[in-house]
Amino acid sequence: MRILITGGGGFIGQRLARALLARGGIAEEPGAASKLTELVLFDRAFAPDRLEDEHVRYVAGDMLDRDLLVHACAPRIDAVFHLASVVSAGAEADFDLGMRVNVDGMRNVLEIGRAEPILPRFVFTSSVAAFGGDLPDVVLDTTAPTPQSSYGTQKVIGELLVSDYTRKGFIDGRCVRLPTIVVRPGKPNRAASGFMSSIIREPLEGKPAVCPVPPETQMWIASPDRAVDMLIHAMELRGSAWGWNRILNGPGITVSVTQALAALERTAGSEAVQRVRFERDSDIEKIVLSWPVRFTTERADRLGFEGDAGIDAIIRAFLRSAG
Amino acid sequence: MRILITGGGGFIGQRLARALLARGGIAEEPGAASKLTELVLFDRAFAPDRLEDEHVRYVAGDMLDRDLLVHACAPRIDAVFHLASVVSAGAEADFDLGMRVNVDGMRNVLEIGRAEPILPRFVFTSSVAAFGGDLPDVVLDTTAPTPQSSYGTQKVIGELLVSDYTRKGFIDGRCVRLPTIVVRPGKPNRAASGFMSSIIREPLEGKPAVCPVPPETQMWIASPDRAVDMLIHAMELRGSAWGWNRILNGPGITVSVTQALAALERTAGSEAVQRVRFERDSDIEKIVLSWPVRFTTERADRLGFEGDAGIDAIIRAFLRSAG
Repeated sequence: MRILITGGGGFIGQRLARALLARGGIAEEPGAASKLTELVLFDRAFAPDRLEDEHVRYVAGDMLDRDLLVHACAPRIDAVFHLASVVSAGAEADFDLGMRVNVDGMRNVLEIGRAEPILPRFVFTSSVAAFGGDLPDVVLDTTAPTPQSSYGTQKVIGELLVSDYTRKGFIDGRCVRLPTIVVRPGKPNRAASGFMSSIIREPLEGKPAVCPVPPETQMWIASPDRAVDMLIHAMELRGSAWGWNRILNGPGITVSVTQALAALERTAGSEAVQRVRFERDSDIEKIVLSWPVRFTTERADRLGFEGDAGIDAIIRAFLRSAG
Repeated sequence: MRILITGGGGFIGQRLARALLARGGIAEEPGAASKLTELVLFDRAFAPDRLEDEHVRYVAGDMLDRDLLVHACAPRIDAVFHLASVVSAGAEADFDLGMRVNVDGMRNVLEIGRAEPILPRFVFTSSVAAFGGDLPDVVLDTTAPTPQSSYGTQKVIGELLVSDYTRKGFIDGRCVRLPTIVVRPGKPNRAASGFMSSIIREPLEGKPAVCPVPPETQMWIASPDRAVDMLIHAMELRGSAWGWNRILNGPGITVSVTQALAALERTAGSEAVQRVRFERDSDIEKIVLSWPVRFTTERADRLGFEGDAGIDAIIRAFLRSAG
């Protein structure tokens, strides 16, 4: 079995690649794992400390380069994880870049799947940025997407395309709206949600961190491990389990800044918490406050997707993986 | 004021053009109608019996031809009615054509609006084809779109783009999901909904008609007059009345085939009804039964959009306009 991961050089892409190699493939039917023969990681560029493995092939380039994509996927691809995108603040700062990569680039990847002779499975990472505006207190599986960012708009367009390509029999698609991933390792990226990782990660590394929102601010989050598990589970479920609706809200937990700092104190003591300084940034606050923080995820629960146990467990898992 | 109508050669486009000429323009503020100086009708082709008026300019071509669109809109455009699209059965039969025209072509029209120095108003005709699958009994203003056709998918993508272009300050956009238009004049088009017009229009003209669905089949409909009124009202409302949510379900009425035939009998006698033959077509039935037939349109009602009084009034209006 040959698997493509777009955005394969990113944090989640690399984690997903490691998980797939450790499992040796994906189980398209219960108990029937197809052996992984090649894992193609496609991205604009790759960091030097990338995963090296005999089954992994790296292809660096632009998703708008259809020929390169076709070449990367030859002679065939059985499954696609489409993770690549311009992130939230990036798509907001450069509207045309977001449209090109997140819509036109995605259409190229969908066409790769469509051209395969055997219906490939296709997992798309969508986002809670699908929701915004005057939201209900709790987002349900049936709540209409109302994105309030270009990134969210482009993600919802991607969901619609995956759904229609699936209905047409071009691919066997599945979309998971991932919660905000916390704790991200490394340096902050351009995501407005980055502070929730920073206020945990930096103090644990003995560094200062800035929190740009008030302590009572809540966020709907999932750990990197659970996010990777969700993507693999989305891929392994039978199409009949998904049914006609190929979009779901992935399970997360609702955590406030106060709760995150309390968990940090329980894990690393009060000196860690004292490294966090509050300094409001109204631009970031405005974006973060537009996001939904409470969901019911009945459909995901019924289909066997699993969220995190709590913020303490998330912090402990981060320490283990960092250590 | 200069107004662009894409799909200006179509049935609704021509009706809308006549209505705009009769009004002399659109009122951007209550009581302050801007005088219409030029009405640009853009379409692939125009019928010989098209509306002729000194204020009307016809431009025939492809929406994918960006230069032609720019040329058609020079020196400036104050308002755009974007009606042009590949219709439902057409977009289903030729997926790539639907994507090119309904998505890429629409993006060209949106870019025309974005390039204007003064924020242009932009009305987009969306459709009840936004909904399908396992629907609630009554579609609410907050019901999530779940299109089950490529046409519906492309219409929802258009709504998302209009919303995001509006949020970004590129255009002042408004989307109205129109009910199925009944009675359409002329010959059937490729729309699966065409029979509801046929079973009224043909008998009134003394011709036979075929109904491909059972008598109890219901449809959510609006007359051509109300559809045109809705588009003009959508354009004339202030942006602040629309608020951040630029998409709404237009008002319609729910009518069954049985009710339509009873109204036909009241208007034209039993011999008219006897010209309708039932001959089931499972392909059409499947598409029609996937459409929602009941809506609450509280938001449209509150904003002053008006639906039809009933099917009898729709038939009488058709007879008046045909006569």
